[in-house]
Amino acid sequence: MLNIVESVGEGVTDLAPGDHVLPVFTGECKECAHCKSEESNMCDLLRINVDRGVMIGDGKSRFSINGQPIFHFVGTSTFSEYTVIHDGCLAKINPEAPLDKVCVLSCGISTGLGATLNVAKPAKGSTVAIFGLGAVGLAAMEGARLAGASRIIGVDVNPAKYEQAKKFGCTDFVNPKDHNKPVQEVLIEMTNGGVDRSVECTGNVNAMISAFECVHDGWGVAVLVGVPHREDQFKTHPMNFLNEKTLKGTFFGNYKPRTDLPNVVEMYMKKELEVEKFITHSVPFSEINTAFDLMLKGEGLRCIMRMEE
Amino acid sequence: MLNIVESVGEGVTDLAPGDHVLPVFTGECKECAHCKSEESNMCDLLRINVDRGVMIGDGKSRFSINGQPIFHFVGTSTFSEYTVIHDGCLAKINPEAPLDKVCVLSCGISTGLGATLNVAKPAKGSTVAIFGLGAVGLAAMEGARLAGASRIIGVDVNPAKYEQAKKFGCTDFVNPKDHNKPVQEVLIEMTNGGVDRSVECTGNVNAMISAFECVHDGWGVAVLVGVPHREDQFKTHPMNFLNEKTLKGTFFGNYKPRTDLPNVVEMYMKKELEVEKFITHSVPFSEINTAFDLMLKGEGLRCIMRMEE
Repeated sequence: MLNIVESVGEGVTDLAPGDHVLPVFTGECKECAHCKSEESNMCDLLRINVDRGVMIGDGKSRFSINGQPIFHFVGTSTFSEYTVIHDGCLAKINPEAPLDKVCVLSCGISTGLGATLNVAKPAKGSTVAIFGLGAVGLAAMEGARLAGASRIIGVDVNPAKYEQAKKFGCTDFVNPKDHNKPVQEVLIEMTNGGVDRSVECTGNVNAMISAFECVHDGWGVAVLVGVPHREDQFKTHPMNFLNEKTLKGTFFGNYKPRTDLPNVVEMYMKKELEVEKFITHSVPFSEINTAFDLMLKGEGLRCIMRMEE
Repeated sequence: MLNIVESVGEGVTDLAPGDHVLPVFTGECKECAHCKSEESNMCDLLRINVDRGVMIGDGKSRFSINGQPIFHFVGTSTFSEYTVIHDGCLAKINPEAPLDKVCVLSCGISTGLGATLNVAKPAKGSTVAIFGLGAVGLAAMEGARLAGASRIIGVDVNPAKYEQAKKFGCTDFVNPKDHNKPVQEVLIEMTNGGVDRSVECTGNVNAMISAFECVHDGWGVAVLVGVPHREDQFKTHPMNFLNEKTLKGTFFGNYKPRTDLPNVVEMYMKKELEVEKFITHSVPFSEINTAFDLMLKGEGLRCIMRMEE
């Protein structure tokens, strides 16, 4: 089982066989300037690297087939029953937590949740707009619900997303396609000047601009989460900043993997964070292509892959 | 004397004749959503309005000559020995404070100072870049000095500004014209990854972009202060935000005029804030055009206008 430590290498002191863990695509060395900063989670040593393919340290792979090395993938290499992971990319969690549920906290769900709770930080009773109602956006919405936002506006070009979003606290839904003016203007009108916080989870640069411009002057904060295209340019009039709107972004919801993820698991154990809502499918590993199909069709939110039948 | 209350109108309860005050171009009604927000100073009722020309309330002017009304100017109308000002635009200050010194705190000096102290909020020992070393930029630099920044980098296209800036704590000077690459790259190289905070006080949109892009990933915060042109567009790659760089802006240094300015005056009275450094000239009112000439030539920082010869 991928979430239980089978053995540890030389020098590993924080983990022992039998520990329950979440493997994370980005790590925390606890030694670099980023790890020592209270604000950053972008570890210099173990920050996501999709090209590395080998272990940090000796620069070698730990996998092989018929004597030929097989590369690691994004630090975790998890489509496998056993894997080898740098201890800086493993969060040790409560052994009581059901691994077939909390495994979804290793990536997108924490990314959205943290974007709201750690970065946007809406006050109780505030108005929050969430752009993009996929799993990450709904996790951001779950964060708004947990923070006690009184009005949560979902923004998506697919009207079918509203029904599902209601389970995550969505009180209003806006489809930009229903309006013949920029959606930021629609949001500003319906909120008497702008939302208190917005979280953008689409990766579309126009949605990013709308998410920024729709926040209230004086105190509004927009948080970008979606990954843009290489050629994108974020453009806005600088007066928007002078009017005291703040623009931030986040990587993995600003969670430090080893320090913070155990606490996210505890939020679930205390029945605050509702992880089950995100798990819409579960398939055995032999049906992995079904899971990819669901993702490509935008059906469901998270599909759990069962390594044992 | 313009900084002493001569009389008060009906309903004014917070001020009385003889009070020492600073008139401010923007106000604080203490009732609106902005005034009630801890984060905003952009009062709905009394926010700067260069076109109003009359008193809020009855919409009339309080000035006339030969029966013809004369308009108010930016809420204060201060090129005058006597004026009429909305009580929401007057900060009551310590009567011991020398009015011919602290009068400069009504506008640009507080704008720069607050941009650093209230918005950028550099930690002790951090590295701060200040773009534009006019009076506002030097006030932002004074804020960095007061906050205990250990490295303060001045950025200006005029090399003559360095000498003066040293009095405000400037430890390094960068002239973008001395380099054949964007100044943000120069700053990132000389600070091993970027500055902790930057404050932009030029109004030039390219400086705004540089000020944002030069901050460190993970924790850097850039603050825009300079007023842009109408046609300007702030452009950057959205990945800069995802890398956890924050972009903010500020109006009047986020100071609430009535609530906060008395405390800025106290910073001067306690000899923390060094106001005298900003006052390079003083002329009688009859020589007002000399003061304009100095400003247009970029000579000096602040020129005090003496109403009495």
